[in-house]
Amino acid sequence: MRRPFLPVFLTASVLAGGCASPQRQADIAQANREVVLKFYEAGLNRKDADAALHYVGPRYVQHNPNAADGPEGFRQFIAFLRDKYPGSHSTIVKSFVDGDFVILHVHAVREPGTRGNAIVDIFKLENGKIVEHWDVTQAVPERTASGNPMF
Amino acid sequence: MRRPFLPVFLTASVLAGGCASPQRQADIAQANREVVLKFYEAGLNRKDADAALHYVGPRYVQHNPNAADGPEGFRQFIAFLRDKYPGSHSTIVKSFVDGDFVILHVHAVREPGTRGNAIVDIFKLENGKIVEHWDVTQAVPERTASGNPMF
Repeated sequence: MRRPFLPVFLTASVLAGGCASPQRQADIAQANREVVLKFYEAGLNRKDADAALHYVGPRYVQHNPNAADGPEGFRQFIAFLRDKYPGSHSTIVKSFVDGDFVILHVHAVREPGTRGNAIVDIFKLENGKIVEHWDVTQAVPERTASGNPMF
Repeated sequence: MRRPFLPVFLTASVLAGGCASPQRQADIAQANREVVLKFYEAGLNRKDADAALHYVGPRYVQHNPNAADGPEGFRQFIAFLRDKYPGSHSTIVKSFVDGDFVILHVHAVREPGTRGNAIVDIFKLENGKIVEHWDVTQAVPERTASGNPMF
């Protein structure tokens, strides 16, 4: 009558090891995505640097070639947007997440009515906070060779 | 004596549903990444369009604004590279995968010794084949505001 406990033990070990781990990773990935989406909306669209920096860790390594490094560089960039392009808006067309990295495909329009830029942003997170950023930016052309849009 | 079967049933259902599914998803994601890495190396670096198109599905929807649509557009682009920039090389700095999407952060140098371009490519896959492509391209500048590189 002791043998029935073996399957119970197996079930518990599967739940704790082989199963919980990928699910836990998926939960962390989804949480990372949410952090970046909130950061982006607060910073780029509401232009509230303080609210956005709530989602940034103790460092913010900047690879955008035009922006200064660190949280202070981000603050300067948001102040520039508030001053020069108060009507600018960034639409996140797609978001992707791979572990500690979140990638956004963005249509950013600085002046309403213009074609704007296609941007891909890459964010690295540590412990649920953004710590590093890369991006690539290209002006959206009037027409494309294929007739397909850039997004 | 019938009750011992209940835990066995639970174990089997956990393996088939709650556990196998995330692992299976991770396996598919990794396979998708491999497909795109092989496609990129064959096409952009070896400049062998036929070998690259082995990884492309029945359609190839092109969102790069300068390239024609479909597999034939890709073939034309590779022929252009072979003709004009035979020494061009694309280095994949990072790759990410989120389900059916694979994202590459690339340093592409058309003429050896030049700074080249930063590119992010986004590929969508269906049934293990590439079916759609978006990208964003920006020239690597001589210097950056932060002093950090673009990669």
